[in-house]
Amino acid sequence: MAENKRKKRFTGKRDVNANTKKKFYNSKNLKKNGNKKTKPEKTKPSVKIAFLGGLNEIGKNITLFECEGDIVLLDCGMAFPDGDMLGVDLVIPDFTYIEQNIDRVRGMVVTHGHEDHIGGIPFLLSKMNIPIYGTPLTIGLLSNKLKEHSLFNSAKLNVVNAGSKVRIGCFEAEFIHVNHSIPDSCAIALHTPAGVIVHSGDFKIDCTPFVGNMIDLHSFARLGHNGVLAFLCESTNADRPGYTATEQTVTSSLDSLFRDAIKSRIIIATFASNVNRVQQIIDCADKYKRKVAFSGRSMVNYMKVAEDLGYLKIPENMLIDIDMLSRYNPEQVVLITTGSQGEPMSALSRMAYSDHRKVVVGEGDFIIISANPIPGNEKTVGNVVDELLKRGCKVVYEGMYDVHVSGHACQEELKIVQKLVNAKYFIPVHGEQKHLRKNAELALSLGVNKKNIYIGDIGSRIEINENYIKELSSVTAGKVFVDGLGVGDVGSIVLRDRKHLAQDGLIIIVASLDVYDGHVISGPDIVSRGFVYVRESEELLDEIRGKSLAILEDCADNNIKEWGIIKNRIKDDVSKMIGQKTGRYPMILPILQEV
Amino acid sequence: MAENKRKKRFTGKRDVNANTKKKFYNSKNLKKNGNKKTKPEKTKPSVKIAFLGGLNEIGKNITLFECEGDIVLLDCGMAFPDGDMLGVDLVIPDFTYIEQNIDRVRGMVVTHGHEDHIGGIPFLLSKMNIPIYGTPLTIGLLSNKLKEHSLFNSAKLNVVNAGSKVRIGCFEAEFIHVNHSIPDSCAIALHTPAGVIVHSGDFKIDCTPFVGNMIDLHSFARLGHNGVLAFLCESTNADRPGYTATEQTVTSSLDSLFRDAIKSRIIIATFASNVNRVQQIIDCADKYKRKVAFSGRSMVNYMKVAEDLGYLKIPENMLIDIDMLSRYNPEQVVLITTGSQGEPMSALSRMAYSDHRKVVVGEGDFIIISANPIPGNEKTVGNVVDELLKRGCKVVYEGMYDVHVSGHACQEELKIVQKLVNAKYFIPVHGEQKHLRKNAELALSLGVNKKNIYIGDIGSRIEINENYIKELSSVTAGKVFVDGLGVGDVGSIVLRDRKHLAQDGLIIIVASLDVYDGHVISGPDIVSRGFVYVRESEELLDEIRGKSLAILEDCADNNIKEWGIIKNRIKDDVSKMIGQKTGRYPMILPILQEV
Repeated sequence: MAENKRKKRFTGKRDVNANTKKKFYNSKNLKKNGNKKTKPEKTKPSVKIAFLGGLNEIGKNITLFECEGDIVLLDCGMAFPDGDMLGVDLVIPDFTYIEQNIDRVRGMVVTHGHEDHIGGIPFLLSKMNIPIYGTPLTIGLLSNKLKEHSLFNSAKLNVVNAGSKVRIGCFEAEFIHVNHSIPDSCAIALHTPAGVIVHSGDFKIDCTPFVGNMIDLHSFARLGHNGVLAFLCESTNADRPGYTATEQTVTSSLDSLFRDAIKSRIIIATFASNVNRVQQIIDCADKYKRKVAFSGRSMVNYMKVAEDLGYLKIPENMLIDIDMLSRYNPEQVVLITTGSQGEPMSALSRMAYSDHRKVVVGEGDFIIISANPIPGNEKTVGNVVDELLKRGCKVVYEGMYDVHVSGHACQEELKIVQKLVNAKYFIPVHGEQKHLRKNAELALSLGVNKKNIYIGDIGSRIEINENYIKELSSVTAGKVFVDGLGVGDVGSIVLRDRKHLAQDGLIIIVASLDVYDGHVISGPDIVSRGFVYVRESEELLDEIRGKSLAILEDCADNNIKEWGIIKNRIKDDVSKMIGQKTGRYPMILPILQEV
Repeated sequence: MAENKRKKRFTGKRDVNANTKKKFYNSKNLKKNGNKKTKPEKTKPSVKIAFLGGLNEIGKNITLFECEGDIVLLDCGMAFPDGDMLGVDLVIPDFTYIEQNIDRVRGMVVTHGHEDHIGGIPFLLSKMNIPIYGTPLTIGLLSNKLKEHSLFNSAKLNVVNAGSKVRIGCFEAEFIHVNHSIPDSCAIALHTPAGVIVHSGDFKIDCTPFVGNMIDLHSFARLGHNGVLAFLCESTNADRPGYTATEQTVTSSLDSLFRDAIKSRIIIATFASNVNRVQQIIDCADKYKRKVAFSGRSMVNYMKVAEDLGYLKIPENMLIDIDMLSRYNPEQVVLITTGSQGEPMSALSRMAYSDHRKVVVGEGDFIIISANPIPGNEKTVGNVVDELLKRGCKVVYEGMYDVHVSGHACQEELKIVQKLVNAKYFIPVHGEQKHLRKNAELALSLGVNKKNIYIGDIGSRIEINENYIKELSSVTAGKVFVDGLGVGDVGSIVLRDRKHLAQDGLIIIVASLDVYDGHVISGPDIVSRGFVYVRESEELLDEIRGKSLAILEDCADNNIKEWGIIKNRIKDDVSKMIGQKTGRYPMILPILQEV
């Protein structure tokens, strides 16, 4: 029934769910051991895999498969900039290799709707309009994104339900339901002429998820039984022993917090994409007779798509606008907000720093951060928590009270799925080096031959078939920076300058020179930004002016007219002088004009 | 014997160890319950405490005590800059309040030799030469620091051994041995005319430390029994339940790692100040017959001081120069290095990024990071680990194999010491808001009256005596930035400019104007840095030039000669145009010259 509702509500494009009859065990391919070399009836071709993102980095996941002249892509995500990528808004993959082979690209399959898997798609589609295949919620969220980029109308979006297959060139992509922190997540079994390649997507094993079914382990088992050539397996939690706890632990934690939050307004921050978590909160609010409001643009957007497609069920008359909050008593409301990562512009941060236009927090507010800090965000999350505490709020954060579980498989889960898939070649993906290595170690501990485990890097390209796995020469891959509307126009030189400016600021030295004799007509004027507080450093600026003037006059006297030489002398001498006096090395910019 | 050796070797100044006979229980003050109000024989004065640093922040610890016209300071640390303090090297306390009361300042007691407790002293001493009291290693490390600042010869440094008292004005400071991650750490019992105030310093309870004695719980018990007015207690690990494990767990972990590291060179990164950890490593190296080399300037410096003062014992012929490493087989050496926090310029980072002049790492290197990342450093430490793994090193990091234990007390330890001290007023110090609150909650759970618990902020000043605790008006306190040689000359305006420059770079528009009619004689020339890659953006820069020229000519035509107005028009219009075209808002700097 839920499936019907989803289909009915979905306003996207074609529905290509292949009505293929699934045979659990494909008798044709049945072998006693799928991994043993058997004489093939005819020699199978090989498949080539190029890793364009997601290795040795978190995010920006994209993989390219080539077989018999056809190319299919899997995911196309974005990453958030590191601290040293100053001013960069987001990072997307380098599409050069795809563009070079555009006439062979048949389409893209998408595993789920997280930014690190779909965030790069608008930038790719603006270069090539390839067909895209994904589950209803994934395509719904992608549609929203493409609308913002004015790419929706031309996009070729295809809805595939988990459990179905779709043909793309010589490939057949089978979508397999998995558990993760967003509904409608899938692993992909890519049936190629060279054999079956399974990509796990992001997953965990939750035998008792809050909404929907357990991960479809039967399909992994069937594929493994029939023989899998390669398993590309995510590695996010590969260094964590044991199991990820079930979502049900969050349910009971939330329930007891709601029960105890007497006379308090409850504010819960979580990932906007974690639709099931929001459903948990809504169900809890329903039980304790609280109204619910959403805060944060992405929260409002995601919830609209999720509700439209039937993934979120909100009781009638429960939802109120954030403007209505003040009309209710604290114990009558729950505010669900973005900002669980302490992002400076997010709704929760604004509340913490008293900068939110509609919500003022203080004593009587009970704030739950239902998410763990992503590595690198610990400090900003900590700062937000501190500000909220200073304002008298009660705050539940980090590991307290089991208000969050990860969306990724820990070691025992990884091992189970690796064993079920039972692939000849094991390729850890999605993670930094330490995660990839740990995942490889797990495979090794399960008896996979070391020669059959491959740890790649972005740009790596391999060829595999029944008989060998070999590394080919690398292809172009890397990080393309998006800054404002600019894609790729900020590179290493611009970033180097930004870093220099951020470190010690700059000093501009401007002078007008006589076009005939090179002597100074006007200036030199000194302008500084980000260097020192000017009013307290007049003396230093005077010295810089004097030094510059002396150099300019000396050059004019000696008939040195090459501006490059003059500017370099100013840069070197002034920089040296400032360094000695202040221990700092601001950027020095001499600007000369001829009059 | 060790004590003798220390005294003999120490090259510092006066030794003021008071030969006071310690009476375990001071019968004069003996009361049945130190916390109950008893009619005092005469009214005691009050003591005032000003918190100049270390509250709602990590580091920069400094506290000021005033009683009967005398002032004594406790610690004077530095803090590391947050990510948004661009270009700032370190942060020190604001000394304004101390300077305002300089004639009453009698001296400073220092609890231990960590940077967050002594790092601000050179900057204070350059303003006022007050006497300083600390244990031998603390004074030794401080001496080293003062030499770098050319302040050692004039400094009034006084060595006090743990267990001794020293008189400073109307105060008597009793140094109490505690366990921590640097030897010679102390808590301070400040005997004042108003009563006894205990400051925990940084501490933990280690019943079986690797070197030296267990924390002197007997002294805390004695003080508590006789009556303590206030307890200022550190809060670093107040949100961690249970106990910090003993240093002995590290010993056995290191031993088994050394045993298993066959044919490998061992490289261990730890805090340079963690002298006992280095001793553990050296003892292990001795057992497994490896030579030891040090890497990193601060490691070499700290070890020299520690060895000179007898805190580090290195077997003869064990220490080799880092240049000699290559003359030995991998299994014959251990390299002890800085860089456990992934600091970009540290020895370990340089090794990881193949930028170390003397050490090349790769397969056959077994690297142990014997420290946990300080919050905010997780990402940089992770990056270093990844680089080392990529080079084929084996790496033990974070929680793996118990190669590190914290230097701070967890909840159960905090409770024990709080109960022993049994003070009337409880004041959590050293920590962000969440740590202070947690520590306060612990005190509350032990039965301390909520009214007698005080959580302050930097700048808070309180007055306490037997009958009341009250908050006075705040005093000047804050963060003073040190950038290069400049102290305090980088403030919020400079930082705001640096942030703007870092975000989107800058565009400079220079023109020479006719002194008579205001028309453009030369330019406008456009110079940009950190904005776009210029060669690919000629068109945009041309548009900026055109727009600027039009504005300048329009102003000249309309006889607008006020440069402020002209510049603002250029700023506004060019910024708007660039914003629309690129989605970015670089700093716009119009510079006009009259010719």
